[in-house]
Amino acid sequence: MNKQAINLKHKLSMINDHWKPRVIAEMNDYQFKLVKVKGEFVWHNHPDTDETFIVIEGSLDIEFREGKVTLEKGEMYVVPNGVEHKPVAHKECQLMVIEPKGVVNTGDKDSELTAQNDVWI
Amino acid sequence: MNKQAINLKHKLSMINDHWKPRVIAEMNDYQFKLVKVKGEFVWHNHPDTDETFIVIEGSLDIEFREGKVTLEKGEMYVVPNGVEHKPVAHKECQLMVIEPKGVVNTGDKDSELTAQNDVWI
Repeated sequence: MNKQAINLKHKLSMINDHWKPRVIAEMNDYQFKLVKVKGEFVWHNHPDTDETFIVIEGSLDIEFREGKVTLEKGEMYVVPNGVEHKPVAHKECQLMVIEPKGVVNTGDKDSELTAQNDVWI
Repeated sequence: MNKQAINLKHKLSMINDHWKPRVIAEMNDYQFKLVKVKGEFVWHNHPDTDETFIVIEGSLDIEFREGKVTLEKGEMYVVPNGVEHKPVAHKECQLMVIEPKGVVNTGDKDSELTAQNDVWI
C-alpha cells in the first residue's frame, strides 16, 4: 500500500498548461484532479453528476445562465448535475476538481478544450 | 439554486470541539466534512469505502498497523477501504474529510469518540 502524502502545491508545480486536468488520487470511483485555468471555458453541463471545485490559488468565476458564483482561494462550490455552467478565470487560477472517474471536462460539449481523460501526475 | 461559495476557514471558525465532523457540502451521495482534531483517535476501518483526508491547517499522522503517513498543510491521502488506521494529531489539526454520506467517523468501532452523523454547519 502506498504511504505517501500527496502534496497539492508540488503536484501543481508539474502543470504548465491550462484546462488540462491531471488526476492525483482516487477514492472509490471518484477522482481528485488538479488543473490550472485561465480565460473562458465553454458552456457545458454534466447530466449525470455533480462536480466539485476547490480553489487552491487565485480566483474563479463559475457563470450560470442566471448569475454566477465567485470562488476565492480556500473556497469551494458543488455544481449540481445538469446545470449549465462556464468557468472563467480572469487571471491564472489553480483548482482541485472532484468528480466520478470518466467525467470529461467539457461535459456534454465537444470542444477544442476537451481534454484527454484519466491523465495522472 | 444556492450560489454561495463555501469558505473553508469561515466554516472552520464555527467549530470549537474535536473529532466531531460537520458537513459543509454534498456531491451526489458523497459529503465534504470539516473537523478539528487533537490527540489520538481510535483504531478503526471502513469496510465499504475509501476515506479522503486533506489537511487545511496543522499536521496529521495516520497510523497503520505497519507504518504511518504524515500529512502537512496542503497535503492529502486516501485511506483504502478495510485498512485499519488511527489518526493522531500532536497539536490541533484542521481537516477536510470526504466520504460517502452515512459513513460514521469511528467506522467499525463503537467508541466514546463516535460522533453524530450528518451535522451541517
